[in-house]
Amino acid sequence: MDNYKQFLIFFFLALAVGFGSIAFVLIWVLYNREGLGWDGGAAEFNWHPLLMVIGFIFLQGIAIVVYRLPWTWSCSKKMMKFIHAGLHVLTFILAVISVVAVFDFHNAKNIPNMYSLHSWVGLAAVILYSAQIVMGIAVYLIPETPVYVRAALMPVHIYSGLFIFTSVIATALMGFTEKLIFGLKSPAYKDSPPEAILVNFLGLLVTAFGGLVLWIATRPSWKRPTEEIARSVGSSSTSQEVFNTDTAVTRITHLDLETRRRNGKAEESG
Amino acid sequence: MDNYKQFLIFFFLALAVGFGSIAFVLIWVLYNREGLGWDGGAAEFNWHPLLMVIGFIFLQGIAIVVYRLPWTWSCSKKMMKFIHAGLHVLTFILAVISVVAVFDFHNAKNIPNMYSLHSWVGLAAVILYSAQIVMGIAVYLIPETPVYVRAALMPVHIYSGLFIFTSVIATALMGFTEKLIFGLKSPAYKDSPPEAILVNFLGLLVTAFGGLVLWIATRPSWKRPTEEIARSVGSSSTSQEVFNTDTAVTRITHLDLETRRRNGKAEESG
Repeated sequence: MDNYKQFLIFFFLALAVGFGSIAFVLIWVLYNREGLGWDGGAAEFNWHPLLMVIGFIFLQGIAIVVYRLPWTWSCSKKMMKFIHAGLHVLTFILAVISVVAVFDFHNAKNIPNMYSLHSWVGLAAVILYSAQIVMGIAVYLIPETPVYVRAALMPVHIYSGLFIFTSVIATALMGFTEKLIFGLKSPAYKDSPPEAILVNFLGLLVTAFGGLVLWIATRPSWKRPTEEIARSVGSSSTSQEVFNTDTAVTRITHLDLETRRRNGKAEESG
Repeated sequence: MDNYKQFLIFFFLALAVGFGSIAFVLIWVLYNREGLGWDGGAAEFNWHPLLMVIGFIFLQGIAIVVYRLPWTWSCSKKMMKFIHAGLHVLTFILAVISVVAVFDFHNAKNIPNMYSLHSWVGLAAVILYSAQIVMGIAVYLIPETPVYVRAALMPVHIYSGLFIFTSVIATALMGFTEKLIFGLKSPAYKDSPPEAILVNFLGLLVTAFGGLVLWIATRPSWKRPTEEIARSVGSSSTSQEVFNTDTAVTRITHLDLETRRRNGKAEESG
């Protein structure tokens, strides 16, 4: 099957699973739990899973793969960097609001903060994420940073980003586990009431979303073409044409993808 | 710093963190918990975290990076494949014994099996792992499998392996969370007794081990050289010489590493 079609299948599958996760967490907090509010009670706590799934999982995943979307390859690299950074900053803001919600809830109920492995890994992820954003802006958005510094730090930037994203998903799985044990009393979690099944499936959905984003992000043949190809495409086609499978951009894209697919395979067949 | 020294630092750091994880889980089950036994009670349950950390986390991690060890590059690729497969099979056996221990414990105590997200993701990981081993043997150890099939499936084999390994670590983090909530009553998990702190640090250690293994496994410049270079090395040096930094193997290795490092950077600097 054509490489471009394969990409589309994986990307739209990731979108479907991502929106599915958001739907499941919404059903959980609105239907099984106490809804949403900002009163120091359970309804305030519920912002925590909701905003984490929308932001730290879904939006962060989209921010990670945004360079891979072929219909953005006619946009300048600089604009795509701003979109990538902007989505990450938005994610960070949602994560901070989400953390405030859970601290407020704990303080109102006299529950200690930061005692669980969930909170340790989660706070580490938030701190590393803020460092990643600051480093990313300093290295890749400030024009004065020399190219050799950008090149030297790119593998670290990519790895850290994927590591933080994966840690966030692991943290979510611990969070679901905690909430199901503490929140379900009679019937308890071990009696598998409908809420337990729903949230277990939510856990499988965010795991699958993570797996799809990591697959898309690590395929060499799905990378954005080099800036020279992207520029030559940008000057000879409108954004409308980019979507048209008969234009030059698509032909260049497909050729480029095919070449890289073959190179990738030759390299990996050892 | 020299690429070879960098590899050694990361590899020995991974070993140290891995052995640290095993030490922490041993202290947990022997000192804080009920020790080890096979009686359907708590001592039988304790084999579950112990064997999972030793096998599904530590041994699987070593199996993943075993091709990266420069002192194995004079061994034939076939022998390294058997070591890689052997370590994974050993891991699978330990994982199965570990799962039997927890089912026995649940059945003896009338606790339902397979209700938690931990058990769902964990069982999925065990099943996917067995499929990965069967596929790996069929594709890469049976000589009749055509080279184009091996090449086509290599990206899937690598990705699935790393995905399963990461899922296992996420499952361990959920398992630690469950056991701390159920096992600690007075003082409870939220009161942060020494056992809670110990197991939280165990969680950080296995996360760090996972991060190190993923970093080592995904550096293109640390890959085993192509079979041609490995063969020419194998015929001209003994295994003793491989450890000597002045031999041909090291020079070839360093040249190869340096070339691949530059290629990798050029590709990633965009």
